[in-house]
Amino acid sequence: MRTGGATRTQEQLRRRNLGEVLRRVHEGGPLSRAALSTRMGLNRSTIMDLTAELVSAGLVREAVPTDWGRAGRPSIMVMPEPEKLYGLAFDVAVDRLVAARVGLGGTILARRESVRTRAGVDLQDVVGVLAAFGRELVAEAGSGTTCVGVGASYCGLIRRADGMVRYGPQLGWVDQAFGSELAAELGLGLTVSVGNEAHLGAVAEHVRGAGATVDNLIYLHGDVGVGGGIIAGGKLLDGDGGYGCELGHMVVNPVRGRPCLCGSRGCLEAEVGEEALLDYAGRAGELVGRDGIRAVVALAGAGDEPARAALARIGDWLGVGVVNLINLFNPALVIFGGMLRDLYPGVAPQVQARIDAHVLPVARERVMLAVSGLGDDTTLAGAAELAFAELLANPLDHMAARR
Amino acid sequence: MRTGGATRTQEQLRRRNLGEVLRRVHEGGPLSRAALSTRMGLNRSTIMDLTAELVSAGLVREAVPTDWGRAGRPSIMVMPEPEKLYGLAFDVAVDRLVAARVGLGGTILARRESVRTRAGVDLQDVVGVLAAFGRELVAEAGSGTTCVGVGASYCGLIRRADGMVRYGPQLGWVDQAFGSELAAELGLGLTVSVGNEAHLGAVAEHVRGAGATVDNLIYLHGDVGVGGGIIAGGKLLDGDGGYGCELGHMVVNPVRGRPCLCGSRGCLEAEVGEEALLDYAGRAGELVGRDGIRAVVALAGAGDEPARAALARIGDWLGVGVVNLINLFNPALVIFGGMLRDLYPGVAPQVQARIDAHVLPVARERVMLAVSGLGDDTTLAGAAELAFAELLANPLDHMAARR
Repeated sequence: MRTGGATRTQEQLRRRNLGEVLRRVHEGGPLSRAALSTRMGLNRSTIMDLTAELVSAGLVREAVPTDWGRAGRPSIMVMPEPEKLYGLAFDVAVDRLVAARVGLGGTILARRESVRTRAGVDLQDVVGVLAAFGRELVAEAGSGTTCVGVGASYCGLIRRADGMVRYGPQLGWVDQAFGSELAAELGLGLTVSVGNEAHLGAVAEHVRGAGATVDNLIYLHGDVGVGGGIIAGGKLLDGDGGYGCELGHMVVNPVRGRPCLCGSRGCLEAEVGEEALLDYAGRAGELVGRDGIRAVVALAGAGDEPARAALARIGDWLGVGVVNLINLFNPALVIFGGMLRDLYPGVAPQVQARIDAHVLPVARERVMLAVSGLGDDTTLAGAAELAFAELLANPLDHMAARR
Repeated sequence: MRTGGATRTQEQLRRRNLGEVLRRVHEGGPLSRAALSTRMGLNRSTIMDLTAELVSAGLVREAVPTDWGRAGRPSIMVMPEPEKLYGLAFDVAVDRLVAARVGLGGTILARRESVRTRAGVDLQDVVGVLAAFGRELVAEAGSGTTCVGVGASYCGLIRRADGMVRYGPQLGWVDQAFGSELAAELGLGLTVSVGNEAHLGAVAEHVRGAGATVDNLIYLHGDVGVGGGIIAGGKLLDGDGGYGCELGHMVVNPVRGRPCLCGSRGCLEAEVGEEALLDYAGRAGELVGRDGIRAVVALAGAGDEPARAALARIGDWLGVGVVNLINLFNPALVIFGGMLRDLYPGVAPQVQARIDAHVLPVARERVMLAVSGLGDDTTLAGAAELAFAELLANPLDHMAARR
């Protein structure tokens, strides 16, 4: 009995360590065995055994560095197999559908994109377009390659367990079985993990974007509305049931707030979203989408008075939201992504003024503000991380099941 | 080399399991070996070895249940040693100083309390009173007992590393070395771990209070100001450097907010604190403190119009704060403690109205509201958990060092 218990825990430990080695080269790129040994606190022979197992499962490759200049034996480099192992990543945003084949290690190997109109897009349309993209991407990958998982980013509230879209007001979706429908239509024998776009954006920026060196960050994502994701202590906060962190529905204007699509008033999303900006700038009906926001920022830069006033007003409400997030979470970094990446440079003075007026000194002295490091691929990159999650949790068993 | 690595990880595992057994009986009370085996996923003989080690270190006791009614051999019960092992817990609130000897398992064995005036309390006064209490409590405990740690709760922002009070506006403290001064004055050869009162309150309510069955909760604590602590995924959120979750300085009234002691305006603490309530009720100068708040709630219940209007106004702002916390964190439970325990029954309708108006349906259908389960001892109980933290992390080494 005791031997059985000890063996089981040893085996659990080995699996965890295999996943940890794979995660480190997936997230950090090629690493020497020596670096893995130091960072994981395991001796070199243990690391050698682990990487040997990963090599024989076809998950990593080992190589002698070609530019080894120092005396002595070089430490073998361990790197992921990006061409042979890939995930499928999908991104459903308000104004575009994207699909990509993403190699282990995070490189986007191939992509398809569809720009579409906003109104009346139903579940079957979206699933049809994405599944066709996905099948093309798999066919292109060819023999000798393995799709290890599928992840999707969606602009709404997602039930973690099954990828059900509980609430996606921008596309008018309520309780749509997006994850299971896409899985069925793809026909790869893989489930589709679905996440909220802003949550996934936060993960991606933390893994390989502007927040790669910090463990407490807030990612604010503007699409037509505004969402956010929070990394606290290195982990995504997603609340009871996965519906947490609806930063866009924080009430910043409780007294005379603009109506919000969610039915409430004065939400951050209502006060700083695309509709408010174009409305204040006097351009509603004339401009639309990301291009519209860029145009207003450009107009303000050129001295257009309504555009300047609109940015000042939007920036003030965005500042109230950012202040609250800083006082609540004390992050090291606040990242602006999606359309907020375009908006932020135009409203930075107003945001800073609210920070100066309201943030506690101990938090103010630590926090930095930045735009997303992964550009427009932040949410797509987050979907790819979802695609790799099961592989990284248990590499050998996952590969055995996929072959 | 490989054997060395395996031995080290086996040993790490054993230490972690010893701490985990101790934590379970400390937090959950007496448990059978069978229950420990099931909950920890370890076989019975492994559990028996672990509890035997804890018994010989004097940390737990084992006993045959006296009321064993079923056929077959009874499973031995494992319970903490509350009389022999204790922590010292201190609570510095705005209107009182409390010290207690708290047994392993969380029972308050003895306490001292000092009610004091608010103005001009400096570090040396507070440390002097608390250290005298502490020495008395240790002397009373007598021989054969061991103080395993010291924890303190303070109404301000604390630097985690050394217990420095960075900012405690209610007592007018800035950068006061509270933790190290109290440790020196106690002279027990133990460091004093200091935490923010609302953070510690959240931990205590999660470990043994109203939130013992949930893993996502928000604890709102009213003293003169308002603070809060957040448990997300079973863990306290405390941000970069430990200064996070300043819920009281969330801006709920950005347009015409009341000035706050922190220098900002419109903070939750300014809008719903004692000063605002007494001011709106027309009782400033006449009533004060917890008794004052209870009096206003009682007056409102008796039909006093200014008191009713004051509660309605305060309740509305509290509702805005609670709404934002629910939309941000999607908790299973919001707990009102400290003076908010007295206030909440008088403002529940306003809080509920704001929830109905602004909270997203998926979050609204899950959340419950409650008052603290530990009454006025919530923050003290949290300080006791700090006192036990090192022991629970590594029981045998910690005891070896204490003897």
